[in-house]
Amino acid sequence: MTESVLPPTAADIHAAAARLKGVAVRTPLISSPVLDEATGARVFLKPETLQRTGSFKFRGAYNRLVQIPLEQRAAGVVACSSGNHAQGVAAAARMLGMPAVIVMPSDAPALKLRRTRELGAQVVEYDRVREDRDAIAHAIASERGAIFVPPFDDPHIIAGQGTVGLEIAEDLAALGLAPDIVSANVSGGGLISGMALSVKERFPLARIVAAEPAGFDDHARSFRSGVRERNPAASGSFCDALLAPMPGALTFQVSSVLVGEGAQATDAEVSAAVSFAFRELKLVVEPGGAVALAALLNGRLGAEGKTVAIVLSGGNVDPETFAACIRA
Amino acid sequence: MTESVLPPTAADIHAAAARLKGVAVRTPLISSPVLDEATGARVFLKPETLQRTGSFKFRGAYNRLVQIPLEQRAAGVVACSSGNHAQGVAAAARMLGMPAVIVMPSDAPALKLRRTRELGAQVVEYDRVREDRDAIAHAIASERGAIFVPPFDDPHIIAGQGTVGLEIAEDLAALGLAPDIVSANVSGGGLISGMALSVKERFPLARIVAAEPAGFDDHARSFRSGVRERNPAASGSFCDALLAPMPGALTFQVSSVLVGEGAQATDAEVSAAVSFAFRELKLVVEPGGAVALAALLNGRLGAEGKTVAIVLSGGNVDPETFAACIRA
Repeated sequence: MTESVLPPTAADIHAAAARLKGVAVRTPLISSPVLDEATGARVFLKPETLQRTGSFKFRGAYNRLVQIPLEQRAAGVVACSSGNHAQGVAAAARMLGMPAVIVMPSDAPALKLRRTRELGAQVVEYDRVREDRDAIAHAIASERGAIFVPPFDDPHIIAGQGTVGLEIAEDLAALGLAPDIVSANVSGGGLISGMALSVKERFPLARIVAAEPAGFDDHARSFRSGVRERNPAASGSFCDALLAPMPGALTFQVSSVLVGEGAQATDAEVSAAVSFAFRELKLVVEPGGAVALAALLNGRLGAEGKTVAIVLSGGNVDPETFAACIRA
Repeated sequence: MTESVLPPTAADIHAAAARLKGVAVRTPLISSPVLDEATGARVFLKPETLQRTGSFKFRGAYNRLVQIPLEQRAAGVVACSSGNHAQGVAAAARMLGMPAVIVMPSDAPALKLRRTRELGAQVVEYDRVREDRDAIAHAIASERGAIFVPPFDDPHIIAGQGTVGLEIAEDLAALGLAPDIVSANVSGGGLISGMALSVKERFPLARIVAAEPAGFDDHARSFRSGVRERNPAASGSFCDALLAPMPGALTFQVSSVLVGEGAQATDAEVSAAVSFAFRELKLVVEPGGAVALAALLNGRLGAEGKTVAIVLSGGNVDPETFAACIRA
């Protein structure tokens, strides 16, 4: 299979949406009077927490795997992930009858490790600080003749994640509304790049904001410098899902043009946002899924008086972590 | 104001829907591949957890209060409630600029007591076992000239709650589907009676099932005997929202004809359903909001192979209670 090295287009996202129809959950767009009052904005939440496997990652994974020719499927796929891409790939592989090996950090949340195994994938654990997950994964792939499925830097993955933005755009248009601001949590940038393409196809004036944990603001710094900047640390954030070392090469081609701005939230602010989602929204959101919400609640999106869409990107949080957030 | 003593009709529910448009949240209908796999059914969840005040109760309360003539509003309203009707009435009263006094049991969840006060209502606490909440509330009402807003046995309340069923029916019809079974948690029967009217208007063959905590199955026993039966205990269930002593006179006129069957779940099953909703659905549901889900998960709805709609009626649960459920 030959890989395109160009980013996807809006047309690729429409094609991905057709592949995902009836397979992925078309998550609703939710409004909350309490959130509107708290922010002075008209806010719409896109809870990808309700997506198959509990995060948006299933969309990109399925869109990638379903395009693997039948004769190549028996050798399976390999991926590396802290947990949400892992589950997305594992679920898509199971639906398509393919074996899957997932290389996961040994400090990933227990829930994510267990879930990935429950979905039928073989999990290979590695040390996040000392070992190179890509090297491990590529060695397994070449040994088995399996296809490596990158977490974000792939046009099919980006196109799949972009369907989140397509649905937001369709649902807002159906309400007769145009978003002023659309924000999602960012790690490698697959989701935000895909969303920027699909949202701006219909709403070219919408601001797209990359929400990142404080101290892991590689996108914001890269947008300012114009080149891909690396995070100083590879671990240590509360947001286990958002630890990619730097923006992807392909995703940055899109995001540097169509996104171009970031917003940050501290671990304490993210924890408070998880608690807010529990108390006020009645939604279970994992820390890495709540950064954009935290940025909004702390006034970092310039949202007052605006129509805003926020992606709650995942809800795979251990009970202990969640209990600590909601009791604080 | 003269009160009708007849139950509402489907037309009254459509009128309530018009009053609630743009005021209540039109909650989505959610599907979950995991839940479908676990039950062998095609399940649609109606998360009234996402409703204003975190439960469906706002619908009925607003539909009642907005019909109070302007000249009577200054004297305000009085209600008694373990917490969700309290918040619904308090929120509706605040929106309409009316004072509200809510008579609440002193053992109501702290979250519900606090929330009701935060919504601007005056809370009067009473002892659930030793005192008569209706007597207290009626004394306050006659002293102030305030209007008593019953929790369920009122045609406007029933009509407001019935909009939950109307939305389920509309959304399923838009998907080209007809429900075989619709189930909701039941206390006094306002929700299930209103839903039975609105669901059966469009889908007369749908089975409507009243879900009750084991030991508080007054509806199921009343359906069998044909007369309103009383629960043996006034407290002691994990489901603090579902402690009405018996079916309402008005609600039973409807439910005895259009519902006619019940399903039960034990406290342990309800706790497990709350945990399932956390882990698999990423939704925060309070114990009393999870009985129908628990009945479904334990095979008590005869749901296999069927199209089923389940109401998650509320999400107002204390962090401590929730943490205990999800860690078990």
